Amino acid sequence: MLCLKVPSQPSWVTAAESNLEKVLIDHAHCEKKAAVNAMSLVSRYPEKEMLVRQMIALCQEEMEHFGMVYEYIRKRGFTLQRDPGDPYAQALHKEVRKNEPERLMDQLLVAAIIEARSCERFSILSKHVPDAELQEFYRSLLASEAGHYRTFYDIACQYFPEREVRQRLDALTERESEIVLALESQPTMHG
Amino acid sequence: MLCLKVPSQPSWVTAAESNLEKVLIDHAHCEKKAAVNAMSLVSRYPEKEMLVRQMIALCQEEMEHFGMVYEYIRKRGFTLQRDPGDPYAQALHKEVRKNEPERLMDQLLVAAIIEARSCERFSILSKHVPDAELQEFYRSLLASEAGHYRTFYDIACQYFPEREVRQRLDALTERESEIVLALESQPTMHG
Repeated sequence: MLCLKVPSQPSWVTAAESNLEKVLIDHAHCEKKAAVNAMSLVSRYPEKEMLVRQMIALCQEEMEHFGMVYEYIRKRGFTLQRDPGDPYAQALHKEVRKNEPERLMDQLLVAAIIEARSCERFSILSKHVPDAELQEFYRSLLASEAGHYRTFYDIACQYFPEREVRQRLDALTERESEIVLALESQPTMHG
Repeated sequence: MLCLKVPSQPSWVTAAESNLEKVLIDHAHCEKKAAVNAMSLVSRYPEKEMLVRQMIALCQEEMEHFGMVYEYIRKRGFTLQRDPGDPYAQALHKEVRKNEPERLMDQLLVAAIIEARSCERFSILSKHVPDAELQEFYRSLLASEAGHYRTFYDIACQYFPEREVRQRLDALTERESEIVLALESQPTMHG
């Protein structure tokens, strides 16, 4: 569960199982947005060397995953569609404070939480999707997403005192629980 | 020269030679923006398989280049700075028509032209920068940028009749010549 305070609702598992096409397409968009988010952090904090190096590596890994998900989509005869947006991530991003340096801390912790939730959901998908190849793929992504959670947490601790990071993470995961419990259980990664 | 109608002005060569730090930092931002632009095209045209596949590969290559330029920047004791923007690319993007399918054609051709101009400038830099390692790096990028020019041109020909693509490319390179001749010769990739 990493930092998360509540598990995903059983109704999400049912929704995801029943519409693999939508889950895959949404997953592809999540990988793409994670790559673009890494590059946005580089644009905003170009002078922070540790952050820049970690974001370059992360972006490359997310793009590799995007390519893999795209192949799984095509192999099953599905077509990538426009991204209708991710209400879960949007709600979390609203919690980011507007002024620096709080803004940087919050962006890193929100990214960490999204990675943690994705990790939890890949764990569920790896046990529930009716597709052996995808079960294996989701299992392989589990470790990777847990690593990304740790990367964002470690970057935050590089630039801020760990006690403050832990306190803020606790407040943000509290908010994340409310957001997750209010979701309508759509067949998407964070639905 | 690929599709370009005018060479870079000699005053740009002098400006670039005299401020390697600024050239390197701007170059890093160009690679990053090329990667992000590739992902934007995927977001806008997710159903176009050839485009999506090519943009995934392109994004990965641009990110690899970004990482390399970043290492050259740090090795020389320079620090990445915020991107002040690229007036050349901004002027070209203004030529993109607003409605589909013309918008797609123009985005592909503007990207092709930017790659062509970058290629010409890497050729110049590979002969003029006072740094043997960078000369070799710029030479290695030459072929890659020429390949990217071709990639964008080929994608355009996949989705539009080649005669229309050639006509529009001709009009856009005409406009690019005016833009290049009006530049103030800054020490940036497209200055």
